[in-house]
Amino acid sequence: MTSTTPSAPEHLTPGPEHKFTFGLWTVGWQGRDPFGDATRPALDPVESVTRLAELGAYGVTFHDDDLIPFGSSDAEREGHIKRFRQALDATGLTVPMATTNLFTHPVFKDGAFTANDRDVRRYALRKTIRNIDLAVELGAKTYVAWGGREGAESGAAKDVRAALDRMKEAFDLLGDYVVSQGYDLRFAVEPKPNEPRGDILLPTVGHALAFINSLERPDMVGVNPEVGHEQMAGLNFTHGIAQALWHGKLFHIDLNGQTGIKYDQDLRFGAGDLRSAFWLVDLLESAGYEGPRHFDFKPPRTEDIGGVWASAAGCMRNYLLLKERSAAFRSDPEVQEALRASRLDELARPTLGDGETLEQLLADRGAYEDFDVEAVAARGMAFEHLDQLAMDHLLGAR
Amino acid sequence: MTSTTPSAPEHLTPGPEHKFTFGLWTVGWQGRDPFGDATRPALDPVESVTRLAELGAYGVTFHDDDLIPFGSSDAEREGHIKRFRQALDATGLTVPMATTNLFTHPVFKDGAFTANDRDVRRYALRKTIRNIDLAVELGAKTYVAWGGREGAESGAAKDVRAALDRMKEAFDLLGDYVVSQGYDLRFAVEPKPNEPRGDILLPTVGHALAFINSLERPDMVGVNPEVGHEQMAGLNFTHGIAQALWHGKLFHIDLNGQTGIKYDQDLRFGAGDLRSAFWLVDLLESAGYEGPRHFDFKPPRTEDIGGVWASAAGCMRNYLLLKERSAAFRSDPEVQEALRASRLDELARPTLGDGETLEQLLADRGAYEDFDVEAVAARGMAFEHLDQLAMDHLLGAR
Amino acid sequence: MTSTTPSAPEHLTPGPEHKFTFGLWTVGWQGRDPFGDATRPALDPVESVTRLAELGAYGVTFHDDDLIPFGSSDAEREGHIKRFRQALDATGLTVPMATTNLFTHPVFKDGAFTANDRDVRRYALRKTIRNIDLAVELGAKTYVAWGGREGAESGAAKDVRAALDRMKEAFDLLGDYVVSQGYDLRFAVEPKPNEPRGDILLPTVGHALAFINSLERPDMVGVNPEVGHEQMAGLNFTHGIAQALWHGKLFHIDLNGQTGIKYDQDLRFGAGDLRSAFWLVDLLESAGYEGPRHFDFKPPRTEDIGGVWASAAGCMRNYLLLKERSAAFRSDPEVQEALRASRLDELARPTLGDGETLEQLLADRGAYEDFDVEAVAARGMAFEHLDQLAMDHLLGAR
Amino acid sequence: MTSTTPSAPEHLTPGPEHKFTFGLWTVGWQGRDPFGDATRPALDPVESVTRLAELGAYGVTFHDDDLIPFGSSDAEREGHIKRFRQALDATGLTVPMATTNLFTHPVFKDGAFTANDRDVRRYALRKTIRNIDLAVELGAKTYVAWGGREGAESGAAKDVRAALDRMKEAFDLLGDYVVSQGYDLRFAVEPKPNEPRGDILLPTVGHALAFINSLERPDMVGVNPEVGHEQMAGLNFTHGIAQALWHGKLFHIDLNGQTGIKYDQDLRFGAGDLRSAFWLVDLLESAGYEGPRHFDFKPPRTEDIGGVWASAAGCMRNYLLLKERSAAFRSDPEVQEALRASRLDELARPTLGDGETLEQLLADRGAYEDFDVEAVAARGMAFEHLDQLAMDHLLGAR
Repeated sequence: MTSTTPSAPEHLTPGPEHKFTFGLWTVGWQGRDPFGDATRPALDPVESVTRLAELGAYGVTFHDDDLIPFGSSDAEREGHIKRFRQALDATGLTVPMATTNLFTHPVFKDGAFTANDRDVRRYALRKTIRNIDLAVELGAKTYVAWGGREGAESGAAKDVRAALDRMKEAFDLLGDYVVSQGYDLRFAVEPKPNEPRGDILLPTVGHALAFINSLERPDMVGVNPEVGHEQMAGLNFTHGIAQALWHGKLFHIDLNGQTGIKYDQDLRFGAGDLRSAFWLVDLLESAGYEGPRHFDFKPPRTEDIGGVWASAAGCMRNYLLLKERSAAFRSDPEVQEALRASRLDELARPTLGDGETLEQLLADRGAYEDFDVEAVAARGMAFEHLDQLAMDHLLGAR
Repeated sequence: MTSTTPSAPEHLTPGPEHKFTFGLWTVGWQGRDPFGDATRPALDPVESVTRLAELGAYGVTFHDDDLIPFGSSDAEREGHIKRFRQALDATGLTVPMATTNLFTHPVFKDGAFTANDRDVRRYALRKTIRNIDLAVELGAKTYVAWGGREGAESGAAKDVRAALDRMKEAFDLLGDYVVSQGYDLRFAVEPKPNEPRGDILLPTVGHALAFINSLERPDMVGVNPEVGHEQMAGLNFTHGIAQALWHGKLFHIDLNGQTGIKYDQDLRFGAGDLRSAFWLVDLLESAGYEGPRHFDFKPPRTEDIGGVWASAAGCMRNYLLLKERSAAFRSDPEVQEALRASRLDELARPTLGDGETLEQLLADRGAYEDFDVEAVAARGMAFEHLDQLAMDHLLGAR
Repeated sequence: MTSTTPSAPEHLTPGPEHKFTFGLWTVGWQGRDPFGDATRPALDPVESVTRLAELGAYGVTFHDDDLIPFGSSDAEREGHIKRFRQALDATGLTVPMATTNLFTHPVFKDGAFTANDRDVRRYALRKTIRNIDLAVELGAKTYVAWGGREGAESGAAKDVRAALDRMKEAFDLLGDYVVSQGYDLRFAVEPKPNEPRGDILLPTVGHALAFINSLERPDMVGVNPEVGHEQMAGLNFTHGIAQALWHGKLFHIDLNGQTGIKYDQDLRFGAGDLRSAFWLVDLLESAGYEGPRHFDFKPPRTEDIGGVWASAAGCMRNYLLLKERSAAFRSDPEVQEALRASRLDELARPTLGDGETLEQLLADRGAYEDFDVEAVAARGMAFEHLDQLAMDHLLGAR
Repeated sequence: MTSTTPSAPEHLTPGPEHKFTFGLWTVGWQGRDPFGDATRPALDPVESVTRLAELGAYGVTFHDDDLIPFGSSDAEREGHIKRFRQALDATGLTVPMATTNLFTHPVFKDGAFTANDRDVRRYALRKTIRNIDLAVELGAKTYVAWGGREGAESGAAKDVRAALDRMKEAFDLLGDYVVSQGYDLRFAVEPKPNEPRGDILLPTVGHALAFINSLERPDMVGVNPEVGHEQMAGLNFTHGIAQALWHGKLFHIDLNGQTGIKYDQDLRFGAGDLRSAFWLVDLLESAGYEGPRHFDFKPPRTEDIGGVWASAAGCMRNYLLLKERSAAFRSDPEVQEALRASRLDELARPTLGDGETLEQLLADRGAYEDFDVEAVAARGMAFEHLDQLAMDHLLGAR
């Protein structure tokens, strides 16, 4: 395959400074889906590290079982880790995040931290703690927790309040462990509304943020939203990220693509809802988000290994293209005028005046009794003009 | 129209003890929709109070503009309030909740508490406070806030973080006011994902719960989830209510029906997803929720006034039928055995033993090293048997 | 597991007269999903036949690869067929339908009849024809074609018009084959909107019905709608079935459950949207549909083999319960009166009078010039009363 | 408002040659929605004609009641028509399409052609025929039929098969009328899945295409798909259009924007799913569609009249931008190479060879017995590379 970007200008060439990271399970996905067998052979994690480094990535992330196949002996485990570490050293790739596979093995069929079976919950905690040690050893600062099996298909099968008690117990224990070990590690909860369970607990960014507030150490826990997961509930992903940022809780992010409410597609970043991707990059870049730009995608099973790398390269290229367009949008004087015409500056001002009290608001006849409601109602917001300017910038048409 | 329940047994006959309440805007909806004009004449609130009392309701609720048409003079206002109060006195109906209309008038076209226009925000606060006084005067203990216009259709039109600042400012001010007046009133935020805005802020129960934690007086604010609103995002409503209860935040609830992800239908309770309605009633009744069972529905515009009352009666009848079925389900010994077979009792037990420490868990070889993962994985959860028992009870087939 | 229906009355006891059929792949599903490995061991088709017969089924159906593992030698193939036939003979179970697996093997990753690769298309035709021979040999009258891989994830990857040409070519060739062999066999196209492809061709019952009209032998081809597939597009399944019946094209049906727009759940029949299931049974039973009631469901992967049979039994029980309720609904005099009050009888009458011409309609001043539009607009449809009667019957509350 | 395109190059400047048309009800929408009153004053159709002509439109379309308010006297009617015709003459704008409003007045609350009330059906036919005369008089060649009220909210309220009988009766009668008058007019059915009814008959392009085949004069009837309507069912709009073209049935098209499965948004074209819009324009332009590019959108109610025209201009600009990008994509040699690498050329070739018979296919051992299924399965489709090329062209980044 010929590279699509033979002459990419520097600002469109991915490099470590862009903090692009990939899960081993993404490029390594073999294409097994609910109706079909694998279409690609297993990919050696060392090969993934090498190729991702060549493409300009900053780091890799992993589930325990991505690196060390489930059921490996201690000696095999050490061998896998050693080879991986050598690849990291050789390429300079980092490991900013790791996570636990608590969903593939049938033992987790009813969940892990909230499985009805108590012994499964205990096993899940131990499996997680074991991988936290490895994550920290490899330099990870963030530990993601996707509770993909924490849910139910039928109403009586799960007492949700009891399950949330168990979920809280688990996160509190994991926090205890991290503190007891003196680790510099934070947790990021990854919400998803459904699939593989009929309904999953903590289905959206909002539910996860609310849950975190109930923990013993809320400061240690944030969220890891994934584009497609929120879009599977028809939610505006950028709005969800904005709320997570507002709460100071965007600890990590999973970038990919999704075409609306359906099964989890994990398309490459930019595919799916492109305008949403533009606003997302615009927000991340303007809000000062400093964490990794982590791609959690699945190269479609139609692709061979060449297609896998094309897909991975596309994720990064699309991010950089959107970043370029967002910068042009924000620095365009006509856009700045349009933002004022739409009174974005007024939204940024408090509703009460500087030093104004509630009593003063209540006494202000201009605010209510003498407010010319019809005249104000007639003012247009000029959002369509503003949005067309954004469209023009996105399309590179200005 | 002949009554559908000429000989309803006592436990299926609605009465004040069931705490059924209706919004004036529900039975009073005239059937205006995005593609059609009103199909029913305006309904006098006094008539609504009288008929609802006859049907067995416990209370009514209102937006300011339901009771006092927008733009009424002070004298007209007093007249409306007086007639309404007389009807309440005559019927014994209560007013447990009230709310503000911050969406119908074009002045709110870009929102109320988060409108880009600062003067609209000030006006919205004043309009709300004015109705809070009336709500308290009429005995309301809960004040609902549905921010239906707080949102956007395009990406640059709303800086979500700034909007959340303004939303917080509004709720903090309203809390100040209630405290300053010594009112015994709590707020309940009503989430909705979209419609009438492309995306609405605080789109789900989760997002609202998270937001509330950031307020100056989080204890004074809870949620008012609506069946159809969560289902418009494909979320499991019962799960959302369970999480709200877990956080101690279910201050009020809006019951209705919805057939999946589409426009807001506001069908009568029981219509739409019947199995979900069963599990909801099962949860509300078993969790000790003591607030009103508030119906926020719209009798379809195909109906004349007779159909309106049939629809309202159906809401209550369906709730009582589902309550009856839930009670039978929970008291059936075979169900109790099935719940044990599905290990719901184990879910209720903490994952750590009584007094067990994290260190002890880490040292327990049975939890990990000697855990027979394949044997445990082979255990069935027996959820299908349990769910069929629920189906049998729901259908009255046991 | 104790049976849930120790004393089921005769009309709720499944028997061959009810024509309940199951795919081998349904009870035989091992629980492999996009995020998890199999939770159940492989199930011998002979065991499935035996158990299904005991539970009261009428027949079984199969994909070629369900019965004869992909890649079997001719001798192995004969062995599998022989054992299967013996089980059929021993139990009396029939094989009313068969189908081809054109989706599991990676060779079909871009489709079968519409794969971009021409040699894959030829292979798919041959694989299908081979199994048609077996299907006919085993007595099948219907051959289902689910084109689950006929689709795309990206816009340029599939020229849809060319793909429809290839799809037509395939069905025309298969029709040629069936006619040339003198087989008494009809085809049934099974639509699905997405999953496992981002978008699948012929996504709904409507698209399939339209496509069939373009074939050389439209009379030989009908549809095999599946509950969950239409509901994955938010469509009213009963309406779709009604349209298929109206066109004379309901050749087969796949019954299961789905909780709204999300991944394909394949819940047991009755689970998911229960009210929709009621109206579906009401339609099938009243419209004189005579084909098999085929369950295409997946017992959740939380279940062991006991749960599998509980789930299969639940499918049949729920159908029979709903049939009982529908019969009671239709025979209730109050329902019949309510149907008249809602003018269902008028809908059944042609809009033109007996012998009336278009000219007469145009000359009828009562139809337009003198039509009292406001008076007619004021007539209520009384649908809420009617629907509550249906709810009461569904719940067994009348 | 400053124009966003002061210096638009010629190929981005809308002109009559682009055949852009607008409904009077689009720019004339006053912003009344289910939760809010009108935000804009009524717009004189003459003003709309004038402004649209200035913006570069080719034509306007109308519902009878857009031009002649419901209930107008004959004299008023003539006055409205005269003024409109004068505006058309003055501007050169055409009227390529017209349609009937069978949804706003409460008399249509249960439908028009399929209302349970027979007199409503007769009235609807007469109202339609009256406007057909006017449409033809004004030069329309296409008559659109959107049956927005033909549907139901509850299961027993509509016998769908009877309703389809009535729908067929109506279209057959309308066809009779057109033929009897010697009109050069074709009908285009506009599908929609729901809203304003819970479920609407003929919910998708597929269902409408299938229905048309059952009519007396199928050749006279095609479809008028609308972007948002298919996307409200999560369907791929471009795929639906491709199938309509394949059947020779794309008689008209409604262009707008929608952000996924939710209420009908009617955003300006390009807003919503931008990538889908790109593929749509790519298809329309490459398939030789010659009908109007009709915008059926609603300028958001946040806008004043300036915003209305900005929104209308944006529809045309986005179409022209996407047309430019599609042309560049199709003419790029690297794209052409990528299409071959993805074997689009092979999809265009019949599956049987030139003159090959079914018997020859069956005898071709290379097609089955000697087919190297594993080797073929290993071939990648290279779709990701192709799709990234499309992305680059869409973004103007090549």
